[in-house]
Amino acid sequence: MSLVVVGSFGLDTVETPFGRREEVLGGSAIYFSLAASLFTDVRLAGNVGADFPEAALETLKRRGADCSGIQVYKDQQTFRWAGRYQGDMNEAETLVTELNVLAEPPKIPDSYKGAPYVFLANMGPDTQLEMLKQLNGGKVFADTMNLWIDIQRDNLLKLLGQLDGLVLNDAEARTLTGKSNLIQAGNALLEMGPEVVIIKKGEHGAFLFAPSFHFALPAFPTDAVVDPTGAGDSFAGGFLGSLAEMGEFSPTNLRRAMAFGTVAASMTVEHFSTEGLENAARDHLERRYTQLRDFVQFDA
Amino acid sequence: MSLVVVGSFGLDTVETPFGRREEVLGGSAIYFSLAASLFTDVRLAGNVGADFPEAALETLKRRGADCSGIQVYKDQQTFRWAGRYQGDMNEAETLVTELNVLAEPPKIPDSYKGAPYVFLANMGPDTQLEMLKQLNGGKVFADTMNLWIDIQRDNLLKLLGQLDGLVLNDAEARTLTGKSNLIQAGNALLEMGPEVVIIKKGEHGAFLFAPSFHFALPAFPTDAVVDPTGAGDSFAGGFLGSLAEMGEFSPTNLRRAMAFGTVAASMTVEHFSTEGLENAARDHLERRYTQLRDFVQFDA
Repeated sequence: MSLVVVGSFGLDTVETPFGRREEVLGGSAIYFSLAASLFTDVRLAGNVGADFPEAALETLKRRGADCSGIQVYKDQQTFRWAGRYQGDMNEAETLVTELNVLAEPPKIPDSYKGAPYVFLANMGPDTQLEMLKQLNGGKVFADTMNLWIDIQRDNLLKLLGQLDGLVLNDAEARTLTGKSNLIQAGNALLEMGPEVVIIKKGEHGAFLFAPSFHFALPAFPTDAVVDPTGAGDSFAGGFLGSLAEMGEFSPTNLRRAMAFGTVAASMTVEHFSTEGLENAARDHLERRYTQLRDFVQFDA
Repeated sequence: MSLVVVGSFGLDTVETPFGRREEVLGGSAIYFSLAASLFTDVRLAGNVGADFPEAALETLKRRGADCSGIQVYKDQQTFRWAGRYQGDMNEAETLVTELNVLAEPPKIPDSYKGAPYVFLANMGPDTQLEMLKQLNGGKVFADTMNLWIDIQRDNLLKLLGQLDGLVLNDAEARTLTGKSNLIQAGNALLEMGPEVVIIKKGEHGAFLFAPSFHFALPAFPTDAVVDPTGAGDSFAGGFLGSLAEMGEFSPTNLRRAMAFGTVAASMTVEHFSTEGLENAARDHLERRYTQLRDFVQFDA
């Protein structure tokens, strides 16, 4: 089944204990699509500037992704982000954010409308609401961030009432609900509207909450975390990409999709920028999926 | 199989967002034994003062625990600890520590010697080395803490060379190895001697490292964390108690034991002090064990 992602395309400058990369490929839509395109046909929407390298989309196009929703603003610059990770690398310190073309709302091609699966990556909830309406998709998932919880809470709550799934990190879940216990936070988020809530916990894995069941996985055990940038969007891409491929929105498939999201994120963090996912093949993910199952299995 | 635990017996004063309790039952040997005694016959060793309430041992004795190794110092006070938990309650702020009777090394009855399983709870590595020698047990596990990593590193390294299993938390694993990545830290600890290393991560669950496999579980999903005191020792008690009951030191049993440790810890954190484990029955743990298996299962 086809999967539309609306999000950012960026040029990142990243510093970690393992090195520094300048103006490398980044952005939520890029990480998401590189993971999701290993499973299903992805349609990307979002804005880039004249300086966005055409070659950056080659892997995605080779994997059959539809890039017709990427709007090029010839007189503007691409979104830029610079950040630094230290210590346990669980959190980035943002050094620079230049929104540039992100100031314009994304444009959605007619051919994207009515897609069975949609991911609205982190952006203003007002824009997400507008995208949700324009897309009129089947199952719609969205990400958010603390900034929107602070400055657009009402729009975010309105969005939650219309979403099928919410993906956010543990700090965001705590802030949005006021609950420090994550199980309480997950349940409180379900009451705000979505059928499914996923709380990402970085190196500690992820929780899935649904009315009929809860599910959790640790992160895939990698001993080479080089650059965590994009891990959350790669998780979402692996999750929704595999779910769209499986088709049916069932508990069994949601659990499997959590595992594919987990292994997709592990491919990302082992390399700078998108290198891990650019070089990943479907069978790498399948192999890690089996390893992950073994990693948590007891009394089978 | 019988299981000897050497550790502390204490009177704790605890403050959490859910209330305050003064001079309630605590100590590593108490939490460990209350969990382990749901599975196997436990033999306790350690020191108490004249003020230690005799009634505190009733539940343990009813469950068949051997308390003959508990030494009463009539002219001294029991160990006391006071601490406070705030926010996400992942870490206690210690307010008071009065060692009192813990200044004396524990005495080991002859009847405890040669036990097939031993747990040396957190205490100075010099004392742990002495206990290990006196006990001459089968499979010996030990816990430690940052203080000993700082002030008795050489003794701790010597101990590691003689242990079958090490149980410690994530911060301790990072400090002891100098590795911020926990997979690297776990592997580095294996190289220091133990056959098995367990890294406890509080609300994020636990990792098990062995030369032939790695295993991880999230914490049991409880929405009512009232007092985390003793969670780690309860985990160790559920782990070693169930392992001693199963007998064979095999990968399959180590995985099952991790799950029983995880559910034992969940019983502790839902109540103040030892209330959760005092009131727990074996079938409660079995029920949560099944729920935990379901919680992490995918593509079965």
